Amino acid sequence: MEHFNFRLIAKDHAGRAGEFVTPHGVIKTPIFAPVGTQATVKALTPDQLDALGATLILANTYHLYLRPGADLIAEMGGLHNFMNWSGPILTDSGGYQVFSLSKRREIDAGGVTFQSHIDGSTHRFTPESAIAIQEKLGADIILTFDECSEPYDRAYNEEALERTHQWAERCLSAKTRKDQALFGILQGGIFPDLRARSAKFMASLDFPGIAIGGLSVGETKEEMLAMLEVVDPLLPEDKPRYLMGVGSPEDIVEGVTRGVDMFDCVLPTRMARNHAVLTRTGRMNLRNANFSHDLRPIEDDCDCYTCQTFTRAYLRHLIVAQEMLAATLLSIHNLRMLIKLIHDLRETILNGNLESFSEEFRQNFQKHRPKGT
Amino acid sequence: MEHFNFRLIAKDHAGRAGEFVTPHGVIKTPIFAPVGTQATVKALTPDQLDALGATLILANTYHLYLRPGADLIAEMGGLHNFMNWSGPILTDSGGYQVFSLSKRREIDAGGVTFQSHIDGSTHRFTPESAIAIQEKLGADIILTFDECSEPYDRAYNEEALERTHQWAERCLSAKTRKDQALFGILQGGIFPDLRARSAKFMASLDFPGIAIGGLSVGETKEEMLAMLEVVDPLLPEDKPRYLMGVGSPEDIVEGVTRGVDMFDCVLPTRMARNHAVLTRTGRMNLRNANFSHDLRPIEDDCDCYTCQTFTRAYLRHLIVAQEMLAATLLSIHNLRMLIKLIHDLRETILNGNLESFSEEFRQNFQKHRPKGT
Repeated sequence: MEHFNFRLIAKDHAGRAGEFVTPHGVIKTPIFAPVGTQATVKALTPDQLDALGATLILANTYHLYLRPGADLIAEMGGLHNFMNWSGPILTDSGGYQVFSLSKRREIDAGGVTFQSHIDGSTHRFTPESAIAIQEKLGADIILTFDECSEPYDRAYNEEALERTHQWAERCLSAKTRKDQALFGILQGGIFPDLRARSAKFMASLDFPGIAIGGLSVGETKEEMLAMLEVVDPLLPEDKPRYLMGVGSPEDIVEGVTRGVDMFDCVLPTRMARNHAVLTRTGRMNLRNANFSHDLRPIEDDCDCYTCQTFTRAYLRHLIVAQEMLAATLLSIHNLRMLIKLIHDLRETILNGNLESFSEEFRQNFQKHRPKGT
Repeated sequence: MEHFNFRLIAKDHAGRAGEFVTPHGVIKTPIFAPVGTQATVKALTPDQLDALGATLILANTYHLYLRPGADLIAEMGGLHNFMNWSGPILTDSGGYQVFSLSKRREIDAGGVTFQSHIDGSTHRFTPESAIAIQEKLGADIILTFDECSEPYDRAYNEEALERTHQWAERCLSAKTRKDQALFGILQGGIFPDLRARSAKFMASLDFPGIAIGGLSVGETKEEMLAMLEVVDPLLPEDKPRYLMGVGSPEDIVEGVTRGVDMFDCVLPTRMARNHAVLTRTGRMNLRNANFSHDLRPIEDDCDCYTCQTFTRAYLRHLIVAQEMLAATLLSIHNLRMLIKLIHDLRETILNGNLESFSEEFRQNFQKHRPKGT
């Protein structure tokens, strides 16, 4: 199959099941991508990631540009070789991190000058340099350099959207590698008309996929979902839609039922390092003393290594004893939980049961909160 | 085969190759046991331990007694079930930790009263309670409660040795489980006559194995090896000898050539968390900038997952970026390196080549120090 071809296999209401072909394998959508910010999904080996069913993983351009540097990764044969991940990889453009992490930043029409959050050194990203860096990193899917603005400020959003659109065109022109798919990122805060304008603009350009940026950044859940409903009918059916930085179980269900094909989020691995686990009915913090004698796995019907091997009592012991293994085992469960959930959503779309599945999920979620949450 | 039978298969000079039968499998000696202090070998899953060739692992009675408690582990089906290790497990008696870790301690003929290093609470270990706790934990090999004394104080060592011998007899009497092997621990500081007296005493009691305690606690390397040479001819040929808490590559070679069958040490995993790796020719700290562009594995001919999968450059990146995965990957290498070394020592004993192998090892070790060490 041709690279970066998206095949829409089935549709159920707004939900979509598809396949996106990359040089490192086929991505079956909808998909959840674990985040490997610094060329490692925290606390997990590539073998463990593979075993829990990960296909696509994300790495952050901002972090890798600062450390260890894009030239070094290129010299090492690119990200796939460097971190030993043979499946598809996606890199963001650094846009979001420049605005959320760097110490100071100055935006102009040409790009952004910012200070590293690591050592305060000064750097500059432009649409052209963001593409050049991502070409050195060598991911299968790369992203346009965008401006992620404060969601409620109308005037700022209008101004930022213009830059984001101009930068998207400059990214397209700057791109040289044929073995990478460049996705355009639409923005627009919580303003339906700006979101619609941005969706139409990105749909008009020659991107093999479109990312929805600037959500889950401070707006309400209702506002986020409303924005997805605005862009869904405006985006081309034959291109994947990637909702950036979103990935709680409930957001995945709501996103998939609103036409989203791809998700990524640090939530499952960050929660794991804070001793919290995701289940289909809610969340638990395993540090709670209620679990000290609990012989059950985290989730009875979970097929992950952690649930197949360890009791809640043992996991709680590791947490209380401050053992690193806790983060590994909880990350395995949380990632598997999301990957299995999105796999099941795909199956229900193929079977035409998306509406009843998602309704049942909403009813169960948080209703049967396990003890200790 | 009968449990706790030791079969001496071959001898080469003082080096011994044997098999020790436990309820959870046969231990091929000489063997190195990774340390799982708190019922986890730090940063590794049981699957990873199994893959790197671990057979016997050690857990610490002192730590597990304090947290999560021996009763809880018994309720969970014992250590094997709790931590999901199906191979043999050894627990120490807590004697060493009471002296090295606890905040305050008072020794009397009956036992030791001490304060927890975790919360300062007061506890008491006696020979009888140390056995009762270890019976609850349920390891295959358990140890007598001993007093690990300062190595150079003659008067104190004489006094402590008397207690250690009395306590060993009390441990033997207190033992009730038939599916655990109780090893006696000999002591004696750096005094050849005390070591000899203790070796003869422990050899005279009905222990299926004998541990050599109180070494690598502040004495010189020469003094430690001299003590091994004192006890070697005095210990029964048909029982395994376990050198407690010792396990650098060079100490393993010197120990095996002096008749030691079993080793354990936190060194490989602790070094890994400090970014240092063991090789057959020395040590390297992978944080060193020399490794930033180094495409080689840690050791060219190592068969561990880390060496088969990752470059030094990637490992250094993980270390500099403070990623947890570094500790996991370096622990895998360091443990595999020791387990493979001791496996090779066993082979050379079976082939009658121990002397030339150990001489070559000594010549290579530290002579070809890799850059950056």
